[in-house]
Amino acid sequence: MKNAAAIAHPNIAFIKYWGNRDPVLRLPVNSSLSMNLDGLTTRTTVSFDPQLPADRLTLNGQEVSGAGLQRVTALLDRVRRMAGLSWRAEARSENNFPTGAGIASSASGFAALAVAAACAAGLELDERQLSRLARTASGSACRSIPGGFVEWQAGEDDQTSFAFAIAPPEHWDLADCIAVLSQTHKPTTSQEGHRLAQTSPLQAARVASAAQRLAVCRQAILQRDFEALAQVTELDSNLMHAVMMTSSPPLLYWQPATLTVMHAVVAWRAQGMPVCYTIDAGPNVHVICEQAYAAQVARQLQELPGVQTVLTARPGGAARRIND
Amino acid sequence: MKNAAAIAHPNIAFIKYWGNRDPVLRLPVNSSLSMNLDGLTTRTTVSFDPQLPADRLTLNGQEVSGAGLQRVTALLDRVRRMAGLSWRAEARSENNFPTGAGIASSASGFAALAVAAACAAGLELDERQLSRLARTASGSACRSIPGGFVEWQAGEDDQTSFAFAIAPPEHWDLADCIAVLSQTHKPTTSQEGHRLAQTSPLQAARVASAAQRLAVCRQAILQRDFEALAQVTELDSNLMHAVMMTSSPPLLYWQPATLTVMHAVVAWRAQGMPVCYTIDAGPNVHVICEQAYAAQVARQLQELPGVQTVLTARPGGAARRIND
Repeated sequence: MKNAAAIAHPNIAFIKYWGNRDPVLRLPVNSSLSMNLDGLTTRTTVSFDPQLPADRLTLNGQEVSGAGLQRVTALLDRVRRMAGLSWRAEARSENNFPTGAGIASSASGFAALAVAAACAAGLELDERQLSRLARTASGSACRSIPGGFVEWQAGEDDQTSFAFAIAPPEHWDLADCIAVLSQTHKPTTSQEGHRLAQTSPLQAARVASAAQRLAVCRQAILQRDFEALAQVTELDSNLMHAVMMTSSPPLLYWQPATLTVMHAVVAWRAQGMPVCYTIDAGPNVHVICEQAYAAQVARQLQELPGVQTVLTARPGGAARRIND
Repeated sequence: MKNAAAIAHPNIAFIKYWGNRDPVLRLPVNSSLSMNLDGLTTRTTVSFDPQLPADRLTLNGQEVSGAGLQRVTALLDRVRRMAGLSWRAEARSENNFPTGAGIASSASGFAALAVAAACAAGLELDERQLSRLARTASGSACRSIPGGFVEWQAGEDDQTSFAFAIAPPEHWDLADCIAVLSQTHKPTTSQEGHRLAQTSPLQAARVASAAQRLAVCRQAILQRDFEALAQVTELDSNLMHAVMMTSSPPLLYWQPATLTVMHAVVAWRAQGMPVCYTIDAGPNVHVICEQAYAAQVARQLQELPGVQTVLTARPGGAARRIND
């Protein structure tokens, strides 16, 4: 038996990843930029075991088969190839945040799996190698490998497409107040959405202008310029949803309460509060603010119709091995 | 005294007009396609009067000054130049539909004004000339001059930018069930929005692909192919709102109930009902359906949260002179 355990945090992108140049290697069409979320944690153990006939996956206590297991096996296969190992593995993963609340756990899940599997297999991979490994299982997972504020350079190939920190978690006291909405529709998976991106007449224009937004966003983070961050983050989120809602078939992830929160956040910022919104492939709204305002923002969000609960996270650290 | 009266209907665009190549002449960046709405009518009288020291405008019984009056005077000036007339005029305009409900009345208003003013001045203008005249006051007004299903060819200059009917009102028994929403925000005027269109990184891509959508839409109308009309209409509406929400500053016309209606319409069509949505520069949703379903659609819309009232219109006729 070869065991290891790791934790990782999900991340929220200010400059979004939407669409692949290579869907197998998950080479993205544009570079992206995100912040890890320390309040939310995935904890994963991997045990390579000579007795196991096949890989097994348990997510929050529930055994998973089918496509979910296949995605894990694909990552484990890469690790086995690198380590010259043939044993099958059991992976157990748990999130400390509510499942089914629309908080994507694939980024933190595959980042933690990459670290745990590599360690269990006895590989000594550096951050860049771990980021590339996580990327092949879930694009945004590569951004959950480094800590703090993280850039994923699109790169040219498997070697050059990885994420790195541009600033540590303590660089800027931001918070992400996640407005979790009452969910009635199961959104299309991101994997399917990435495939549809190219069917939108707007995707090429979004991609062509992404590098410039990323430069503005990086600068805003390095200089702790909230207003600049707010404008480019909301624009980039709207650009991704513009592509989604004009793909064939269209993906309309927003629910009525999504717009309630968007309008409220814009109004609060117009009144002088440092706050902005960004939305992933689902209806929930990530409300980014300076930490000094987080309690007030969470309270105000909670009062909006359609907001079920609010989860607050600060900039989180890197994915890392832990003692099991 | 030289008097005339005219009526005109607003129109709903399936392929949208958003952005001008020439904002003074209102030459659009792309051709558009619309249907006149017979249930909604503007009635306008114009009296050129040697006694008047200046033009006067009364809208729904209220005297208007400032920018609203200037826009009317600019159209009257064109008519005076063509007719060699120097008298000032009094224009009185009334809508049979609720004002402030977000039903744009500039298209029907300026179409009726163009017809009434030209007639009062003794000009004998053909449909094309009237369409061009109305266009200079409000772009979409040029589409309210011909009857039924109307195409506005972008053209190259003032001479070639005008609208013409592609099918009469009786060609296809469609209805527009307008879901009027409870309004809390005053939207940005279309005039201002047209200026912002070019600040969106997506506008060029929308415009570049508009001619192809217009061809699909024209064909769908000529062949009475509802499913094809539905897909291209919703896509084109989403493309315009994608541009709006990514302009600087962003224009987010949708309200929470806008999304409630959009999701409902998509679900109804998935269940087999011939229905689709399109949204102008405001929160209201125009729900297009076959007339046989109009009563049911209106009833179902009325039951959705946030829908204040539903106005139903059928394909409308041309702007025309009436006896005062």
